[in-house]
Amino acid sequence: MSEQRVTRPTPISGFPEWLPEIRSVEQRWLDHIRAGFERYGFASVETPSVEALDVLMAKGETSQEVYTLHRLQADADDDSDARLGLHFDLTVPFARYVAQHFNELVFPFKRYQIQRVWRGERPQEGRFREFTQCDIDVINVDQVPLHFDAELPRVVHEVLSGLDIPAWTLNINNRKVLQGCYEGLGIGDPVAVIRAVDKLHKIGDDGVRAILLDQVGLSEEQAKVCLDLAHIRGTDTSVVDEIARLGVHSELLTEGLDELGFVLDSLADLPSGSVVADLSVARGLDYYTGTVYEAAFRDDPGYGSICAGGRYENLAGQFIRRSLPGVGISIGLTRIFAKLVAEGRIATGRQCPTDVLVVVPSGERRGEALRTAARLREAGHNTEVYHQADKVGKQIRYASRKGIPFVWFPPFEDGRPHEVKDLASGEQTAADPATWSAR
Amino acid sequence: MSEQRVTRPTPISGFPEWLPEIRSVEQRWLDHIRAGFERYGFASVETPSVEALDVLMAKGETSQEVYTLHRLQADADDDSDARLGLHFDLTVPFARYVAQHFNELVFPFKRYQIQRVWRGERPQEGRFREFTQCDIDVINVDQVPLHFDAELPRVVHEVLSGLDIPAWTLNINNRKVLQGCYEGLGIGDPVAVIRAVDKLHKIGDDGVRAILLDQVGLSEEQAKVCLDLAHIRGTDTSVVDEIARLGVHSELLTEGLDELGFVLDSLADLPSGSVVADLSVARGLDYYTGTVYEAAFRDDPGYGSICAGGRYENLAGQFIRRSLPGVGISIGLTRIFAKLVAEGRIATGRQCPTDVLVVVPSGERRGEALRTAARLREAGHNTEVYHQADKVGKQIRYASRKGIPFVWFPPFEDGRPHEVKDLASGEQTAADPATWSAR
Repeated sequence: MSEQRVTRPTPISGFPEWLPEIRSVEQRWLDHIRAGFERYGFASVETPSVEALDVLMAKGETSQEVYTLHRLQADADDDSDARLGLHFDLTVPFARYVAQHFNELVFPFKRYQIQRVWRGERPQEGRFREFTQCDIDVINVDQVPLHFDAELPRVVHEVLSGLDIPAWTLNINNRKVLQGCYEGLGIGDPVAVIRAVDKLHKIGDDGVRAILLDQVGLSEEQAKVCLDLAHIRGTDTSVVDEIARLGVHSELLTEGLDELGFVLDSLADLPSGSVVADLSVARGLDYYTGTVYEAAFRDDPGYGSICAGGRYENLAGQFIRRSLPGVGISIGLTRIFAKLVAEGRIATGRQCPTDVLVVVPSGERRGEALRTAARLREAGHNTEVYHQADKVGKQIRYASRKGIPFVWFPPFEDGRPHEVKDLASGEQTAADPATWSAR
Repeated sequence: MSEQRVTRPTPISGFPEWLPEIRSVEQRWLDHIRAGFERYGFASVETPSVEALDVLMAKGETSQEVYTLHRLQADADDDSDARLGLHFDLTVPFARYVAQHFNELVFPFKRYQIQRVWRGERPQEGRFREFTQCDIDVINVDQVPLHFDAELPRVVHEVLSGLDIPAWTLNINNRKVLQGCYEGLGIGDPVAVIRAVDKLHKIGDDGVRAILLDQVGLSEEQAKVCLDLAHIRGTDTSVVDEIARLGVHSELLTEGLDELGFVLDSLADLPSGSVVADLSVARGLDYYTGTVYEAAFRDDPGYGSICAGGRYENLAGQFIRRSLPGVGISIGLTRIFAKLVAEGRIATGRQCPTDVLVVVPSGERRGEALRTAARLREAGHNTEVYHQADKVGKQIRYASRKGIPFVWFPPFEDGRPHEVKDLASGEQTAADPATWSAR
């Protein structure tokens, strides 16, 4: 190949990738999250990256974000891939999975799913076109016990608390409280109110009030109560009393308050501020029907949600003649991680997993270096052999630049011992490859 | 949501997905492969699922397999995603990665990459449209020491030997031997011969001979030597002597034989039959320039290659004004795994990672069950609390159906001890949640 075309590649906006020393931290986070999910008995599931478009569209309202696939050189009359799109979240694929494999699963089915998702959005701060989500969901036949609504935030709390990230708050609400309150006020289109209130943090009280009065057609009094409700926020079940004091009554509101109270009560042992009832959380465009979750960084709430989820009744059930409600929550791993990377708040990890570099003092000694490395690997050490015979100083510099903590010297002459140099301390000592330990 | 549309989902051909008890085995395989790669010091890298089309096309000849992305509701004048395609292997993205991050990497750079890739192929046995590959590659500035050509098959051998898969052989060849031999025979278009010989196992001797005579324009004698060469196969360096006895001479052939001999010699300690020199291996359509690898199941070689790779000179260097040769090998994880699943040869794993199910004898006892579960989790056990108060027999059946090995009984009455039931033996004994061990 003699072509001399040089097209220095540039990053593709919205598709993050990391250097090895950052990737090793991301990998550690992923292992930690996975272990945290498994600690609560969630089983791993992966689904294909694509779904049929009618599956992706079944919940509506997200069409503009979907990437569809096309074969670069497909025949005009070949539409075998024409109805495939990359999934934009992991909840819809999971609902499809449960419906499809219904007869082979044991319910309640608790699964975690850690995968990339894609959205054809304009890239901006905190918004990516490809990113990794870490989801846990429970789907059951007919009804999902409410205690799962409390278990999911607890799992997320444990998992995130084990990662070195800035303080965050998981806000909890219940769509039944919102809808029940609006119904109690005699409002005909509660969903329109939910969507308006969902904009509160973007357009403020006046903006929301204007929509409620002018577009939804509420009275001043109705709009006031809706806004009063949205401003209620608290860390314990006293918020339930506060909502009751609004003086609105409906069956749905009572049901929602019972549920919200149960979830808050169940999580009362968590550190103050980590879980907060926030009646402005609506997840307006989503398919939730009860509890809703939304977490944000405390010092930068405008960055957007770093976890989100809630309870849904009709997602899996639409694919099958069964009622299959669920509740789930998703950690926006890339959203969190990329922010910390951009701000230099990730303590970079190792550039490579190598524990020990075995030096090759000369070409004739290479066999001995390889045998030594094999023994070190058998003893459980990640081991590299330097790639060529070279000056020892150069080999040590290579280890140092790669962050390899130990350099191993096989016997240069017969009868001499193996020696290992700790690059952090500079100390070099005799050691047996079969029994040496880095600690 | 009152819609009653029911569209029972069906699998999408070429996009495999697994039930939890199969997925848990795949996850174990992935962990094993990753640990094997890290044992040799390869660092984890992930790249975006997409590349710019001109990057994907830079090596040529694969265009028909590429999936391009389109936003479902993109404006006609918005082409921001128009030049993006899903990667079809991990070598081209890695070469791009190395060129892009050249100044921030330490060379030789050894990386592993375990990701999904996509090809717009017609699905058939062993061919998927989305599948996972596990790659290791070494890229260096100017030249890659030959010992890496021997290290990669050794890593693959160790990794695959630790998985419960049918016997396989890794076939090795060297493109310099092929090209050098053809040049020594005075053949003007050695690449055309490589592509013809690459078809040997599909069309047989007569088919290849016909192409060589009729299309490439070789003489009977030239064609005979090419076919004789392709039939040479052996487990040790005696193949080098056998090739030499063909009586062909060229500088490139000598160089190739030296390299092939070195690799075979370096791997001589591996079990007989695991690595074999096979002069018919050509990887005809690929970008390899020296050593080439191709592994297949011994009892089903027609299933296709389960590992493939080789040495390439000009893949990363085309993106940057530096010479960045590399050598790499890829394990076709999905290819291997899906075959074993289809044949029922995977010993299914656990449906969920739960070690212990804590029973909830009554609603009032739920708090105690939750506290017990928390203590068991702290002690390192993956623990689930049964989702509602129910008959104990039903809770045990749930554990049994999910493959949960232990069922835990918090004290039913004050003063009684905790008890744990081993579902395999049926034995139930007193136990302390803080100190109990499953073993």
